[in-house]
Amino acid sequence: MRVNGVPTRTIWLEPDGEAVGIIDQTLLPHTFATRRLETVDDAVEAIRVMRVRGAPLIGATAAYGMALAARRDPSDENLARARRALAAARPTAVNLQWALDRMSALLLPLPAAQRAEAAYAEAARICDEDVAANRAIAEHGCQLLAEIWEARGRRGAVNVLTHCNAGWLAAVDWGTALAPVYRASQAGIPIHVWVDETRPRNQGASLTAWELVHEGIPHTVVVDNAGGHLMQHGQVDVCITGTDRTTATGDVCNKIGTYLKALAARDCGVPFWVAVPHSSIDWKLVDGLREIPIEERDAREVTRIAGRTESGELVEVAITPEESPARNWAFDVTPARLVTGLITERGRCAASAEGLRSLYGPRP
Amino acid sequence: MRVNGVPTRTIWLEPDGEAVGIIDQTLLPHTFATRRLETVDDAVEAIRVMRVRGAPLIGATAAYGMALAARRDPSDENLARARRALAAARPTAVNLQWALDRMSALLLPLPAAQRAEAAYAEAARICDEDVAANRAIAEHGCQLLAEIWEARGRRGAVNVLTHCNAGWLAAVDWGTALAPVYRASQAGIPIHVWVDETRPRNQGASLTAWELVHEGIPHTVVVDNAGGHLMQHGQVDVCITGTDRTTATGDVCNKIGTYLKALAARDCGVPFWVAVPHSSIDWKLVDGLREIPIEERDAREVTRIAGRTESGELVEVAITPEESPARNWAFDVTPARLVTGLITERGRCAASAEGLRSLYGPRP
Repeated sequence: MRVNGVPTRTIWLEPDGEAVGIIDQTLLPHTFATRRLETVDDAVEAIRVMRVRGAPLIGATAAYGMALAARRDPSDENLARARRALAAARPTAVNLQWALDRMSALLLPLPAAQRAEAAYAEAARICDEDVAANRAIAEHGCQLLAEIWEARGRRGAVNVLTHCNAGWLAAVDWGTALAPVYRASQAGIPIHVWVDETRPRNQGASLTAWELVHEGIPHTVVVDNAGGHLMQHGQVDVCITGTDRTTATGDVCNKIGTYLKALAARDCGVPFWVAVPHSSIDWKLVDGLREIPIEERDAREVTRIAGRTESGELVEVAITPEESPARNWAFDVTPARLVTGLITERGRCAASAEGLRSLYGPRP
Repeated sequence: MRVNGVPTRTIWLEPDGEAVGIIDQTLLPHTFATRRLETVDDAVEAIRVMRVRGAPLIGATAAYGMALAARRDPSDENLARARRALAAARPTAVNLQWALDRMSALLLPLPAAQRAEAAYAEAARICDEDVAANRAIAEHGCQLLAEIWEARGRRGAVNVLTHCNAGWLAAVDWGTALAPVYRASQAGIPIHVWVDETRPRNQGASLTAWELVHEGIPHTVVVDNAGGHLMQHGQVDVCITGTDRTTATGDVCNKIGTYLKALAARDCGVPFWVAVPHSSIDWKLVDGLREIPIEERDAREVTRIAGRTESGELVEVAITPEESPARNWAFDVTPARLVTGLITERGRCAASAEGLRSLYGPRP
């Protein structure tokens, strides 16, 4: 997708063929800045403090993190150390584990001298596959939006509500939940996106809104509290969110607050779809509420917020009494019963074991 | 309730017997400052920019606003002008209309020369009645919390989730939704309050948390997105919120996002109670979703946020891209079907026409 008109990915190999470039997403929407990752520790830090975030991009960054580790020292011990550090950076998104499994399975059987080159090639492949998967999600989701547009009698715009950022900034390109929006817009379907702010990290207000500005898609930022009211009053045609981990039964673990929107959608008769790249599916799990570890992050993300002053300076301010404790869970689980369906790179399916099996076949 | 140990109300007559004192709630939780209202325009401004807010306190401030108007010029024309200005300051809370109706019904039949004195006396009576009503709500709600505490086998603390601020800062004293918490705490029942941040104005993080700090009640601030996750995991025993307007059928119009918490409560089997002083009941209305006007406020409340810098300065920062529009509805409607019951000054009842009739008798 585009930044100031220039096609851009979220992660790339730098011209030296060794360092990895990323967009520092902690500075958006106020400042667009890129950053070089030179070591696996740089990659771990970027994931942990959320310079890169979004399940697919976390996976891609972890893959390049393994490549950076292999470049310095391709020994088994160093790769194991790198893998542990990367795996611990964020606990919930399964793409991280998935990418590390894939890199390890490829690298460990190779002679040490071949590992670095193979790692860079594999990380690049993971990125390209992510782009291809999301482009397929874009097509399948675009069909859904086209159907809604037809059902509206091609009048007005299709109103999509999304939570958090599952746009191209969350992936390598295209995104997951926003990919159908971008494709539909290219296809001439008028779309308007309700952008949930997504406290506490404000990925909606900071990242989704910024993406939509740069792609020229009409949108409106609302607080997380507003989605129910909008759905009660017929202002939302469809909800589409991403997912950080999807069980084999169609439960969806996504940004905290997703569950509340799914409840409102069911209560108001609004379809609730989730964009699911296969890398987010955890085939071992059958009960998302019990089995998925929910990351708890620093309470300072709740008690402090960063923004731009009138004079353009970026500052962090406190917004709670100093004496008040806070807690900060990053995700919640939306049970499959509340999900109308999944948009995958292989097409749409029901949010159920049967639905996923119909596209992916039986799994262990 | 207490501020730094000193019993305090939210509104009072200044020692000169003419001006009215308030706490400037826009500066909390960072600065505790009071402010003098000298004219009806001061009262209108204080309501509009939310130096005072909360349905009961808006009513009390409007009553004193009429007294300030009568002091300057007690003519019919001036009182009518004052009434129009006060009524337009906030459209949703019915207490505002209720207090203005009551003041007008008292003042207009009187000779002009007697109006100012009568107005001050009536405004003081409205304040005292509010305190008495909320003290009664405290007792009835405390019984509810005592029952939950017994059902827990008197183990741990009773976990209450509340949204927005319906504490003493929203009323003259005691509050509505928090009144039972304060009473239960006095009665030795251990309580822990989950404080919803309540974007965009952050009345939870700013005001509820501040109140609970000063009353020494254990509490934890969470983002609005977190309540569903907490309820899914058994971390909430009961939700209690306030209401800005309640229909004769038990629909509840309260701070935007209340509906989402009520949905989660129903889905998770958590009781959802609403504290309802009679002044918030609009006996004319039967369908909250269709009939209650929802105030839309300035989008800057969504795109900007105020806080305290490291050096203690209060600043406002932008948190969205400048090019992104925002919308800002202040309330939503929770249908009676999602409300376990109402806590009124006359006792608890079902959220229904029958329930309210059982306490208040038939109404026009």
